[in-house]
Amino acid sequence: MSRYFSEKYKNLTPYTPGEQPGTRDFVKLNTNESPFPPSPLAVKLAEEAARNLNLYSDPELKKIRAELSGRLGVGMENVICGNGSDEILDLAFAAFCDKNRPAVFPDITYGFYPVFAEVNQVPYKEVPLFEDLTVDVDGLINTKGNVFIANPNAPTGIFLGLDRIEEILRAKKDSVVIVDEAYVDFGGESAVPLIEKYPNLLVTGTFSKSRSLAGGRLGFGIGNKELINDLNTLRYSRNPYNVNSMTEMAGVGALRDDEYMKKNAETVKATRAYLTEELRKLGFYLPDSSANFVFAEKKGFGGAYLYEELKKRKILVRHFSKPRIDSFLRITVGTMEQTDILLKALKNIISRPGD
Amino acid sequence: MSRYFSEKYKNLTPYTPGEQPGTRDFVKLNTNESPFPPSPLAVKLAEEAARNLNLYSDPELKKIRAELSGRLGVGMENVICGNGSDEILDLAFAAFCDKNRPAVFPDITYGFYPVFAEVNQVPYKEVPLFEDLTVDVDGLINTKGNVFIANPNAPTGIFLGLDRIEEILRAKKDSVVIVDEAYVDFGGESAVPLIEKYPNLLVTGTFSKSRSLAGGRLGFGIGNKELINDLNTLRYSRNPYNVNSMTEMAGVGALRDDEYMKKNAETVKATRAYLTEELRKLGFYLPDSSANFVFAEKKGFGGAYLYEELKKRKILVRHFSKPRIDSFLRITVGTMEQTDILLKALKNIISRPGD
Repeated sequence: MSRYFSEKYKNLTPYTPGEQPGTRDFVKLNTNESPFPPSPLAVKLAEEAARNLNLYSDPELKKIRAELSGRLGVGMENVICGNGSDEILDLAFAAFCDKNRPAVFPDITYGFYPVFAEVNQVPYKEVPLFEDLTVDVDGLINTKGNVFIANPNAPTGIFLGLDRIEEILRAKKDSVVIVDEAYVDFGGESAVPLIEKYPNLLVTGTFSKSRSLAGGRLGFGIGNKELINDLNTLRYSRNPYNVNSMTEMAGVGALRDDEYMKKNAETVKATRAYLTEELRKLGFYLPDSSANFVFAEKKGFGGAYLYEELKKRKILVRHFSKPRIDSFLRITVGTMEQTDILLKALKNIISRPGD
Repeated sequence: MSRYFSEKYKNLTPYTPGEQPGTRDFVKLNTNESPFPPSPLAVKLAEEAARNLNLYSDPELKKIRAELSGRLGVGMENVICGNGSDEILDLAFAAFCDKNRPAVFPDITYGFYPVFAEVNQVPYKEVPLFEDLTVDVDGLINTKGNVFIANPNAPTGIFLGLDRIEEILRAKKDSVVIVDEAYVDFGGESAVPLIEKYPNLLVTGTFSKSRSLAGGRLGFGIGNKELINDLNTLRYSRNPYNVNSMTEMAGVGALRDDEYMKKNAETVKATRAYLTEELRKLGFYLPDSSANFVFAEKKGFGGAYLYEELKKRKILVRHFSKPRIDSFLRITVGTMEQTDILLKALKNIISRPGD
């Protein structure tokens, strides 16, 4: 830390992204990427955009917003795009939270929420998940502030029905409810159709998972026009050219090739069912996942131990050294081949005594 | 504005980016883009990256940082990359400025500085340029706070010698001096070699201008390791995947093809000399520019009037309706063909009485 660093950030603990090994010899099941390449149409449109990079990207992002608007059945004015959905979430923490309106979210959820709260200097409250890792809806309702809820939740993979989301929206009319749907295409149901009914609803989504564009950085927010305007006030005050032209066009291509996404999501769901069943046969406990990962625990074997043993075998999964979940592994659903390599390794590891 | 928007931003006035016309029939000389396409190597590497977008980009951005490190003769630990240099500037306002350490910059400079100060809730002071539009170095030194200085300055195009930059660095050891070198390749001299000598120096640069990658969004910051660490603490707290993989590789390609950039910069300089001479022949006043634009005023003709008349003729330039400079136009140096179209139009406009 330099002596110039502002006091206000001196206790800031940044987010730790999943490892990105420099080599390709790992079976990489740690960051919930898609095992499938992007749609050929997404690649083609990105390549065309690459040839015109001397011109600025469109700060209004009209092409990708029009495409999202058509696909999701909302108005252009209901759509904002970001450099990943992380950027939209960051803007939402900034725009809607402050000392009088804290952020509220489950204690076990996307690990970036507390960091966004801290970097934006806003207070936050964590509401513990129930023992079975489901969300305490009443707890969220009874805690003052804007609610951030990943649905399906990460890293549990558990989906919360829209009736419960509506309960929160109705009970907290003076707060914004942000539903982070990064994983919705793998089995959840989107809250986007509810934005007309609830002016306090903001839904965020990403192209990183089901649409195979993690490396392109494209996310979006959908909500009432006024909420979107507020986010844009901040976007135009930080980075109006936040999405580059190649990524905008990759997103357009990915949306136009919706069948490709749907087919890949179905494959992931089938592989997930197989992985879930096989892990349970091996004695793992895991909740039913609606995402492209599973969250699994094997009694008698620490999560850190299993993580390390897998890494020795060139298999990367995600482990969180956080109370309540440090016995779990979060495992991305890869290809069937990757899944079998993982299962074989786990079988081998647990056939020996744990640490 | 929604009723949920935080009080703290209610008076925020966002930055206004230059117009991006939807059609291609404009002679576009308003946002200081390069008239030349990106290097073929930049395009090729970006295209290759497009095919692997299902994997996350590298949050450490090792490839582009290594390339910059080699090109600029600094260590990897002295380099941070951003989603445009705007992102690095925003991070610098956040990291180093606060109530006790305001931001200080000339009254006429990059219009985003006051917006960055406001969105980051830090106080700022503007030090007026001298009448001849040069920077008041003593004024900057004698005003408490971190100095932000665009060099060459925008929209004046005037370059401030490194001896004057060093004066500021020496006089303000308790403050950070941020030298924004977006336009340095068109005639300025970079302060990067000074980072070893001055731990309070941060230099920012961009690929948007001389390297023809405006639409790709790539910028960088160069400084002492501790300053870079501070910026990274914030980057990892906001958006660790801030630069997408296509853009990272486009940047690598652009740096490897340094000759291409140098040749284009020489062409721009030659065209600028021609444009400057011809404008002066038409009775315009303009300071000598070290950037890829000129800043020109024609007595008796308002800047807004000339801007509108040019727009009617499908020529876009930039006009700032700001006291002291509202009689000026900022005109990007385009191709020789574009320059002749512009000159012909201006000749035609000023041959009639002004408004």
